[in-house]
Amino acid sequence: MPMVGPLKVKAQLLIGGELAMGPGKADLLEAIQSEGSISAAGRKLGMSYRRTWLLVDTMNRCWVEPLVQTTPGGGEHRGTRVTVMGLEVLKAYRALEAELVRAAAGPLAVLEAKLLDTPKASQAETSRGEA
Amino acid sequence: MPMVGPLKVKAQLLIGGELAMGPGKADLLEAIQSEGSISAAGRKLGMSYRRTWLLVDTMNRCWVEPLVQTTPGGGEHRGTRVTVMGLEVLKAYRALEAELVRAAAGPLAVLEAKLLDTPKASQAETSRGEA
Repeated sequence: MPMVGPLKVKAQLLIGGELAMGPGKADLLEAIQSEGSISAAGRKLGMSYRRTWLLVDTMNRCWVEPLVQTTPGGGEHRGTRVTVMGLEVLKAYRALEAELVRAAAGPLAVLEAKLLDTPKASQAETSRGEA
Repeated sequence: MPMVGPLKVKAQLLIGGELAMGPGKADLLEAIQSEGSISAAGRKLGMSYRRTWLLVDTMNRCWVEPLVQTTPGGGEHRGTRVTVMGLEVLKAYRALEAELVRAAAGPLAVLEAKLLDTPKASQAETSRGEA
């Protein structure tokens, strides 16, 4: 998830109550691309196989074409890969994140001027009364 | 949290591991401003008094001045209000959110063109194999 100084920006694409794309799914697509396998990608990101598989299943149902394709069997093309559609969606999502980060710079400066470097200590145990 | 069509954008300001401002705290500031009380604001947002109070405590420790001020006692000025600093931070945070929404429009169009209106049905129970 992109950070700019103290700012964290999270972009999520939702349809029909399902998360079509977000920071975790984008990272997973990249891991599948580099690992060439859903299970290896999940291990790389520290996720269970079941969770990894469910994220892929959701991604594959939310777009006009699947983002990840698995070719079973023993032939030359067997294995898992990110599809052309997957690469396009990933690129557009990362571009969206980058655009959000760029846009944040101006308004963020106003906030950073008022933000401390470190929070003050809590007095939660001694001043809990409300008038 | 701002939504633009299928896109949800979340902006969080973090210092020293604490959340100085985010969608929930901004909503809480607005509720305190309208209700004039931390407990009434918490009720309005469906939060426990303890959780509401902890959010206020955190906000008040992360900025150069407190965002919420409680004046105890029976005098004319007793009660809880959002400070000038609180109103400035709230305004700047909402401006940041608005800027993120504006910036998202272009890159979002690329993604929306590939996004379905509704997810396809899951075949999770019938096609779980990976090559």
